[in-house]
Amino acid sequence: MRPTITAFSSSPDGGKGQARDMRVRWALEEVAQPYDVRLLTSDEMKELPHLTLHPFGQIPTYEEGDLRLFESGSIVLHIAQQHAGLLPADAHARASAITWMFAALNTIEPPLVALEAFTLLEREKPWYAQRLPLVQAHARTRLAQLSKRLGQGPWLDSDFTAGDLMLAAVLFRTMDDGLIALYPNLLTYVHRAQARPAFQRAYAAQEAVFENQLMQR
Amino acid sequence: MRPTITAFSSSPDGGKGQARDMRVRWALEEVAQPYDVRLLTSDEMKELPHLTLHPFGQIPTYEEGDLRLFESGSIVLHIAQQHAGLLPADAHARASAITWMFAALNTIEPPLVALEAFTLLEREKPWYAQRLPLVQAHARTRLAQLSKRLGQGPWLDSDFTAGDLMLAAVLFRTMDDGLIALYPNLLTYVHRAQARPAFQRAYAAQEAVFENQLMQR
Repeated sequence: MRPTITAFSSSPDGGKGQARDMRVRWALEEVAQPYDVRLLTSDEMKELPHLTLHPFGQIPTYEEGDLRLFESGSIVLHIAQQHAGLLPADAHARASAITWMFAALNTIEPPLVALEAFTLLEREKPWYAQRLPLVQAHARTRLAQLSKRLGQGPWLDSDFTAGDLMLAAVLFRTMDDGLIALYPNLLTYVHRAQARPAFQRAYAAQEAVFENQLMQR
Repeated sequence: MRPTITAFSSSPDGGKGQARDMRVRWALEEVAQPYDVRLLTSDEMKELPHLTLHPFGQIPTYEEGDLRLFESGSIVLHIAQQHAGLLPADAHARASAITWMFAALNTIEPPLVALEAFTLLEREKPWYAQRLPLVQAHARTRLAQLSKRLGQGPWLDSDFTAGDLMLAAVLFRTMDDGLIALYPNLLTYVHRAQARPAFQRAYAAQEAVFENQLMQR
Protein backbone atom coordinates (compact mmCIF):
# COMPACT_ATOMS: atom_id res chain seq x y z
CA MET A 1 0.00 0.00 0.00
CA ARG A 2 1.33 3.36 -1.10
CA PRO A 3 1.91 5.60 1.93
CA THR A 4 1.21 9.34 2.14
CA ILE A 5 3.57 11.67 3.95
CA THR A 6 3.15 15.35 4.79
CA ALA A 7 5.60 18.17 4.02
CA PHE A 8 5.67 21.98 4.01
CA SER A 9 3.92 23.51 0.99
CA SER A 10 6.41 26.33 1.34
CA SER A 11 9.56 25.01 2.96
CA PRO A 12 11.25 27.51 5.32
CA ASP A 13 14.68 26.45 3.99
CA GLY A 14 13.77 27.14 0.34
CA GLY A 15 14.03 23.52 -0.79
CA LYS A 16 17.48 22.88 0.68
CA GLY A 17 16.45 19.53 2.17
CA GLN A 18 16.66 20.64 5.77
CA ALA A 19 13.05 19.95 6.71
CA ARG A 20 12.35 16.63 8.40
CA ASP A 21 10.33 15.20 5.50
CA MET A 22 13.73 14.82 3.75
CA ARG A 23 14.74 11.88 5.97
CA VAL A 24 11.44 10.07 5.36
CA ARG A 25 11.61 10.64 1.59
CA TRP A 26 15.21 9.39 1.65
CA ALA A 27 14.28 6.22 3.56
CA LEU A 28 11.41 5.52 1.14
CA GLU A 29 13.80 5.99 -1.81
CA GLU A 30 16.40 3.67 -0.25
CA VAL A 31 13.83 0.87 -0.08
CA ALA A 32 12.28 1.79 -3.48
CA GLN A 33 8.83 2.43 -2.03
CA PRO A 34 6.71 4.94 -4.01
CA TYR A 35 4.80 7.45 -1.90
CA ASP A 36 2.39 10.38 -2.12
CA VAL A 37 2.93 13.75 -0.49
CA ARG A 38 0.27 16.01 1.00
CA LEU A 39 1.54 19.58 1.29
CA LEU A 40 0.51 21.75 4.23
CA THR A 41 0.71 25.48 4.83
CA SER A 42 1.96 26.56 8.24
CA ASP A 43 -1.63 27.52 9.12
CA GLU A 44 -2.92 24.08 8.16
CA MET A 45 -0.26 22.48 10.38
CA LYS A 46 -1.84 24.21 13.39
CA GLU A 47 -5.45 23.24 12.55
CA LEU A 48 -7.49 20.36 13.89
CA PRO A 49 -7.30 17.85 11.01
CA HIS A 50 -3.51 17.91 11.12
CA LEU A 51 -3.29 18.07 14.93
CA THR A 52 -5.28 14.83 15.07
CA LEU A 53 -2.48 13.26 13.07
CA HIS A 54 0.39 15.10 14.77
CA PRO A 55 -0.19 16.42 18.30
CA PHE A 56 2.76 18.81 18.00
CA GLY A 57 1.58 20.32 14.69
CA GLN A 58 4.69 19.43 12.73
CA ILE A 59 5.68 17.55 9.61
CA PRO A 60 6.32 14.80 8.56
CA THR A 61 3.48 12.39 9.23
CA TYR A 62 2.99 8.99 7.61
CA GLU A 63 -0.31 7.37 6.65
CA GLU A 64 -0.52 3.87 5.27
CA GLY A 65 -4.00 2.34 5.32
CA ASP A 66 -5.16 2.66 8.94
CA LEU A 67 -1.67 3.29 10.26
CA ARG A 68 -0.86 6.85 11.28
CA LEU A 69 2.60 7.81 12.50
CA PHE A 70 4.48 10.98 13.35
CA GLU A 71 8.11 11.63 14.45
CA SER A 72 10.67 11.12 11.69
CA GLY A 73 12.53 8.57 13.85
CA SER A 74 9.50 6.37 14.26
CA ILE A 75 8.56 6.68 10.58
CA VAL A 76 12.04 5.78 9.35
CA LEU A 77 12.20 2.85 11.77
CA HIS A 78 8.81 1.62 10.54
CA ILE A 79 9.95 1.85 6.89
CA ALA A 80 13.21 0.07 7.75
CA GLN A 81 11.33 -2.73 9.51
CA GLN A 82 8.82 -3.21 6.69
CA HIS A 83 11.27 -3.25 3.75
CA ALA A 84 14.74 -4.71 3.19
CA GLY A 85 17.67 -2.36 2.77
CA LEU A 86 18.00 -0.21 5.88
CA LEU A 87 18.48 -2.70 8.72
CA PRO A 88 20.93 -5.62 8.77
CA ALA A 89 19.53 -9.13 9.14
CA ASP A 90 21.80 -9.94 12.10
CA ALA A 91 20.03 -9.11 15.38
CA HIS A 92 23.02 -7.41 17.02
CA ALA A 93 23.86 -5.34 13.94
CA ARG A 94 20.20 -4.38 13.76
CA ALA A 95 20.20 -3.23 17.40
CA SER A 96 23.33 -1.18 16.70
CA ALA A 97 21.68 0.57 13.73
CA ILE A 98 18.66 1.41 15.91
CA THR A 99 21.00 2.67 18.64
CA TRP A 100 22.49 5.10 16.12
CA MET A 101 19.04 6.31 15.12
CA PHE A 102 18.40 7.24 18.75
CA ALA A 103 21.91 8.72 19.12
CA ALA A 104 21.35 10.90 16.03
CA LEU A 105 18.03 12.18 17.35
CA ASN A 106 18.67 12.43 21.08
CA THR A 107 22.43 13.07 21.44
CA ILE A 108 23.56 14.76 18.20
CA GLU A 109 20.51 16.67 16.98
CA PRO A 110 19.56 18.63 20.15
CA PRO A 111 22.85 20.62 20.44
CA LEU A 112 22.93 21.20 16.65
CA VAL A 113 19.34 22.42 16.62
CA ALA A 114 20.02 24.57 19.70
CA LEU A 115 22.90 26.23 17.86
CA GLU A 116 20.85 26.70 14.70
CA ALA A 117 17.89 28.16 16.62
CA PHE A 118 20.19 30.44 18.62
CA THR A 119 21.87 31.90 15.53
CA LEU A 120 18.52 32.33 13.75
CA LEU A 121 16.37 33.67 16.56
CA GLU A 122 18.71 35.45 18.96
CA ARG A 123 21.16 37.17 16.65
CA GLU A 124 19.85 40.63 17.60
CA LYS A 125 19.83 39.96 21.34
CA PRO A 126 22.35 41.81 23.51
CA TRP A 127 23.78 38.50 24.78
CA TYR A 128 24.35 36.96 21.34
CA ALA A 129 28.12 37.39 21.00
CA GLN A 130 28.87 36.40 24.57
CA ARG A 131 26.63 33.34 24.67
CA LEU A 132 27.43 31.97 21.18
CA PRO A 133 30.68 30.25 22.25
CA LEU A 134 28.83 28.27 24.95
CA VAL A 135 26.28 26.99 22.45
CA GLN A 136 29.00 26.17 19.92
CA ALA A 137 31.09 24.36 22.55
CA HIS A 138 28.24 21.98 23.35
CA ALA A 139 27.75 21.13 19.67
CA ARG A 140 31.51 20.72 19.14
CA THR A 141 31.86 18.31 22.06
CA ARG A 142 29.36 15.95 20.46
CA LEU A 143 30.80 16.34 16.94
CA ALA A 144 34.33 15.67 18.21
CA GLN A 145 33.19 12.47 19.96
CA LEU A 146 31.31 11.40 16.87
CA SER A 147 34.29 12.12 14.63
CA LYS A 148 36.50 9.97 16.86
CA ARG A 149 34.00 7.10 16.80
CA LEU A 150 33.50 7.23 13.03
CA GLY A 151 37.20 7.26 12.23
CA GLN A 152 37.84 6.54 8.55
CA GLY A 153 35.02 4.05 8.18
CA PRO A 154 32.68 4.74 5.32
CA TRP A 155 29.68 4.12 7.60
CA LEU A 156 29.08 3.74 11.35
CA ASP A 157 29.13 -0.04 11.14
CA SER A 158 30.02 -2.09 8.05
CA ASP A 159 27.10 -1.29 5.73
CA PHE A 160 24.88 1.78 5.32
CA THR A 161 21.87 1.51 7.68
CA ALA A 162 18.92 3.54 8.97
CA GLY A 163 21.37 4.74 11.65
CA ASP A 164 23.61 6.31 9.00
CA LEU A 165 20.59 7.75 7.22
CA MET A 166 19.36 9.47 10.36
CA LEU A 167 22.80 10.65 11.43
CA ALA A 168 23.73 12.01 8.00
CA ALA A 169 20.33 13.72 7.72
CA VAL A 170 20.87 15.38 11.11
CA LEU A 171 24.41 16.50 10.19
CA PHE A 172 23.31 17.63 6.74
CA ARG A 173 20.73 20.00 8.25
CA THR A 174 23.43 22.10 9.88
CA MET A 175 26.17 21.95 7.23
CA ASP A 176 25.68 25.66 6.55
CA ASP A 177 26.94 26.82 9.92
CA GLY A 178 30.46 25.57 9.19
CA LEU A 179 30.93 23.52 12.37
CA ILE A 180 30.89 20.15 10.64
CA ALA A 181 33.64 21.31 8.27
CA LEU A 182 35.95 21.36 11.31
CA TYR A 183 35.81 17.54 11.27
CA PRO A 184 36.97 16.36 7.82
CA ASN A 185 35.83 12.78 8.32
CA LEU A 186 32.32 13.95 9.23
CA LEU A 187 32.20 16.18 6.19
CA THR A 188 33.32 13.30 3.93
CA TYR A 189 30.73 11.09 5.62
CA VAL A 190 27.90 13.52 4.83
CA HIS A 191 29.14 13.93 1.23
CA ARG A 192 29.25 10.13 0.87
CA ALA A 193 25.65 9.95 2.09
CA GLN A 194 24.57 12.78 -0.24
CA ALA A 195 26.07 10.92 -3.20
CA ARG A 196 23.67 8.00 -2.74
CA PRO A 197 21.13 7.85 -5.59
CA ALA A 198 18.28 7.56 -3.06
CA PHE A 199 19.40 10.78 -1.35
CA GLN A 200 19.58 12.52 -4.72
CA ARG A 201 16.06 11.44 -5.67
CA ALA A 202 14.65 12.52 -2.30
CA TYR A 203 16.46 15.85 -2.53
CA ALA A 204 15.16 16.51 -6.04
CA ALA A 205 11.59 15.67 -4.95
CA GLN A 206 11.56 18.18 -2.07
CA GLU A 207 13.36 20.79 -4.19
CA ALA A 208 10.65 20.41 -6.88
CA VAL A 209 8.00 21.35 -4.30
CA PHE A 210 9.76 24.61 -3.67
CA GLU A 211 10.28 25.34 -7.36
CA ASN A 212 6.62 24.64 -8.20
CA GLN A 213 5.68 27.01 -5.41
CA LEU A 214 7.90 29.74 -6.89
CA MET A 215 6.35 29.30 -10.35
CA GLN A 216 2.83 29.70 -8.93
CA ARG A 217 3.58 33.08 -7.39
CA MET B 1 20.99 -14.04 30.07
CA ARG B 2 21.27 -11.47 32.86
CA PRO B 3 22.19 -8.05 31.41
CA THR B 4 24.58 -5.53 32.96
CA ILE B 5 23.83 -1.83 32.83
CA THR B 6 26.03 1.11 33.84
CA ALA B 7 25.10 3.94 36.19
CA PHE B 8 26.81 6.79 38.06
CA SER B 9 28.67 5.64 41.17
CA SER B 10 27.87 9.07 42.56
CA SER B 11 24.71 10.35 40.94
CA PRO B 12 24.70 14.13 40.35
CA ASP B 13 21.04 14.29 41.44
CA GLY B 14 21.67 12.63 44.81
CA GLY B 15 19.63 9.50 44.07
CA LYS B 16 16.49 11.33 42.94
CA GLY B 17 16.03 9.11 39.89
CA GLN B 18 16.82 11.79 37.32
CA ALA B 19 19.79 10.05 35.70
CA ARG B 20 19.04 8.09 32.55
CA ASP B 21 19.77 4.68 34.09
CA MET B 22 16.39 5.13 35.84
CA ARG B 23 14.43 4.52 32.64
CA VAL B 24 16.39 1.33 31.86
CA ARG B 25 16.01 0.02 35.42
CA TRP B 26 12.30 0.80 35.23
CA ALA B 27 11.89 -1.05 31.91
CA LEU B 28 13.73 -4.09 33.29
CA GLU B 29 11.50 -4.07 36.38
CA GLU B 30 8.33 -3.80 34.23
CA VAL B 31 9.31 -7.00 32.41
CA ALA B 32 10.65 -8.68 35.58
CA GLN B 33 14.16 -9.11 34.17
CA PRO B 34 16.91 -9.20 36.85
CA TYR B 35 20.03 -7.22 36.01
CA ASP B 36 23.46 -6.29 37.28
CA VAL B 37 24.80 -2.76 37.60
CA ARG B 38 28.36 -1.60 37.06
CA LEU B 39 28.96 1.77 38.69
CA LEU B 40 31.26 4.31 37.08
CA THR B 41 32.89 7.46 38.38
CA SER B 42 32.74 10.51 36.13
CA ASP B 43 36.46 9.95 35.39
CA GLU B 44 35.85 6.35 34.37
CA MET B 45 33.07 7.49 32.03
CA LYS B 46 35.65 9.49 30.06
CA GLU B 47 38.24 6.70 29.84
CA LEU B 48 38.85 4.26 27.02
CA PRO B 49 37.17 1.09 28.31
CA HIS B 50 33.88 2.95 28.73
CA LEU B 51 34.26 5.02 25.55
CA THR B 52 34.50 1.77 23.58
CA LEU B 53 31.05 0.93 24.92
CA HIS B 54 29.62 4.47 24.72
CA PRO B 55 31.22 6.90 22.23
CA PHE B 56 29.70 9.91 24.05
CA GLY B 57 31.01 8.85 27.48
CA GLN B 58 27.63 8.69 29.17
CA ILE B 59 25.46 6.24 31.08
CA PRO B 60 23.51 4.00 30.72
CA THR B 61 24.94 1.22 28.61
CA TYR B 62 23.57 -2.32 28.27
CA GLU B 63 25.58 -5.52 27.91
CA GLU B 64 23.94 -8.89 27.35
CA GLY B 65 26.30 -11.60 26.11
CA ASP B 66 27.92 -10.15 22.98
CA LEU B 67 25.32 -7.41 22.60
CA ARG B 68 26.42 -3.90 23.57
CA LEU B 69 24.01 -0.99 23.43
CA PHE B 70 23.94 2.65 24.48
CA GLU B 71 21.21 5.35 24.32
CA SER B 72 18.38 4.83 26.80
CA GLY B 73 15.85 4.88 23.93
CA SER B 74 17.53 2.02 22.13
CA ILE B 75 18.01 0.02 25.33
CA VAL B 76 14.38 0.40 26.42
CA LEU B 77 13.18 -0.52 22.91
CA HIS B 78 15.41 -3.61 22.94
CA ILE B 79 14.05 -4.69 26.34
CA ALA B 80 10.48 -4.04 25.16
CA GLN B 81 11.06 -6.14 22.03
CA GLN B 82 12.66 -9.04 23.93
CA HIS B 83 10.12 -9.36 26.74
CA ALA B 84 6.33 -9.09 26.98
CA GLY B 85 4.80 -6.18 28.89
CA LEU B 86 5.92 -2.93 27.26
CA LEU B 87 4.70 -3.17 23.68
CA PRO B 88 1.20 -4.16 22.52
CA ALA B 89 0.83 -7.25 20.31
CA ASP B 90 -1.15 -5.34 17.64
CA ALA B 91 1.21 -3.94 14.98
CA HIS B 92 -0.38 -0.50 14.79
CA ALA B 93 -0.56 -0.06 18.57
CA ARG B 94 3.08 -1.16 18.72
CA ALA B 95 4.09 1.45 16.14
CA SER B 96 2.21 4.09 18.14
CA ALA B 97 4.08 3.16 21.34
CA ILE B 98 7.41 3.43 19.48
CA THR B 99 6.30 6.79 18.02
CA TRP B 100 5.81 8.05 21.58
CA MET B 101 9.26 6.86 22.59
CA PHE B 102 10.74 9.01 19.81
CA ALA B 103 8.40 11.92 20.67
CA ALA B 104 9.49 11.76 24.32
CA LEU B 105 13.18 11.80 23.38
CA ASN B 106 13.22 14.09 20.35
CA THR B 107 10.28 16.51 20.84
CA ILE B 108 9.67 16.71 24.61
CA GLU B 109 13.06 16.10 26.20
CA PRO B 110 15.21 18.64 24.30
CA PRO B 111 13.30 21.79 25.43
CA LEU B 112 13.01 20.42 28.99
CA VAL B 113 16.73 19.63 29.15
CA ALA B 114 17.54 23.02 27.63
CA LEU B 115 15.55 24.71 30.41
CA GLU B 116 17.15 22.56 33.09
CA ALA B 117 20.67 23.19 31.75
CA PHE B 118 20.00 26.91 31.43
CA THR B 119 18.80 27.26 35.02
CA LEU B 120 21.69 25.16 36.34
CA LEU B 121 24.57 26.51 34.27
CA GLU B 122 23.68 30.08 33.35
CA ARG B 123 22.02 31.38 36.52
CA GLU B 124 24.92 33.78 37.20
CA LYS B 125 25.12 35.08 33.62
CA PRO B 126 24.07 38.70 32.97
CA TRP B 127 21.43 37.55 30.47
CA TYR B 128 19.77 34.99 32.75
CA ALA B 129 16.63 36.92 33.75
CA GLN B 130 15.97 38.28 30.28
CA ARG B 131 16.51 35.00 28.42
CA LEU B 132 14.72 32.67 30.89
CA PRO B 133 11.19 33.46 29.57
CA LEU B 134 12.25 32.43 26.02
CA VAL B 135 13.55 29.08 27.24
CA GLN B 136 10.46 28.52 29.39
CA ALA B 137 8.14 29.44 26.51
CA HIS B 138 9.61 26.74 24.28
CA ALA B 139 9.16 24.09 26.99
CA ARG B 140 5.60 25.28 27.75
CA THR B 141 4.57 25.09 24.09
CA ARG B 142 5.43 21.40 24.00
CA LEU B 143 3.90 20.64 27.41
CA ALA B 144 0.64 22.42 26.46
CA GLN B 145 0.39 20.37 23.24
CA LEU B 146 1.14 17.19 25.14
CA SER B 147 -1.43 18.04 27.82
CA LYS B 148 -4.09 18.56 25.15
CA ARG B 149 -3.23 15.24 23.48
CA LEU B 150 -3.22 13.26 26.74
CA GLY B 151 -6.57 14.64 27.93
CA GLN B 152 -7.94 12.62 30.84
CA GLY B 153 -6.65 9.28 29.57
CA PRO B 154 -4.66 7.29 32.08
CA TRP B 155 -2.03 6.57 29.41
CA LEU B 156 -1.19 7.81 25.91
CA ASP B 157 -3.04 4.93 24.27
CA SER B 158 -5.18 2.34 26.03
CA ASP B 159 -2.56 0.44 28.05
CA PHE B 160 0.75 1.48 29.60
CA THR B 161 3.58 1.01 27.05
CA ALA B 162 7.28 1.76 26.56
CA GLY B 163 6.04 5.09 25.13
CA ASP B 164 4.47 6.03 28.47
CA LEU B 165 7.55 4.80 30.31
CA MET B 166 9.83 7.04 28.28
CA LEU B 167 7.52 10.04 28.37
CA ALA B 168 6.89 9.79 32.11
CA ALA B 169 10.64 9.34 32.75
CA VAL B 170 11.38 12.46 30.69
CA LEU B 171 8.70 14.50 32.49
CA PHE B 172 9.72 13.15 35.90
CA ARG B 173 13.28 14.43 35.41
CA THR B 174 12.12 18.03 35.37
CA MET B 175 9.32 17.90 37.95
CA ASP B 176 11.39 20.09 40.26
CA ASP B 177 11.25 23.17 38.06
CA GLY B 178 7.49 23.55 38.56
CA LEU B 179 6.55 23.80 34.88
CA ILE B 180 4.78 20.43 34.74
CA ALA B 181 2.62 21.42 37.71
CA LEU B 182 1.01 24.01 35.41
CA TYR B 183 -0.65 21.12 33.55
CA PRO B 184 -2.67 19.13 36.13
CA ASN B 185 -3.29 16.18 33.80
CA LEU B 186 0.47 15.84 33.12
CA LEU B 187 1.20 15.95 36.83
CA THR B 188 -1.41 13.26 37.52
CA TYR B 189 0.04 11.23 34.64
CA VAL B 190 3.54 11.31 36.14
CA HIS B 191 2.17 10.46 39.60
CA ARG B 192 0.26 7.52 38.09
CA ALA B 193 3.49 6.30 36.48
CA GLN B 194 5.44 6.77 39.72
CA ALA B 195 2.88 4.65 41.56
CA ARG B 196 3.67 1.58 39.44
CA PRO B 197 5.45 -1.08 41.49
CA ALA B 198 8.15 -1.41 38.80
CA PHE B 199 8.89 2.33 39.03
CA GLN B 200 9.09 2.04 42.82
CA ARG B 201 11.56 -0.86 42.68
CA ALA B 202 13.72 0.93 40.10
CA TYR B 203 13.67 4.12 42.13
CA ALA B 204 14.66 2.29 45.31
CA ALA B 205 17.53 0.54 43.51
CA GLN B 206 19.08 3.77 42.23
CA GLU B 207 18.47 5.52 45.58
CA ALA B 208 20.31 2.68 47.36
CA VAL B 209 23.42 3.38 45.22
CA PHE B 210 23.48 6.93 46.51
CA GLU B 211 22.87 5.90 50.11
CA ASN B 212 25.64 3.28 50.02
CA GLN B 213 27.94 5.94 48.64
CA LEU B 214 27.07 8.28 51.54
CA MET B 215 27.79 5.56 54.11
CA GLN B 216 31.24 4.89 52.63
CA ARG B 217 32.33 8.50 53.03
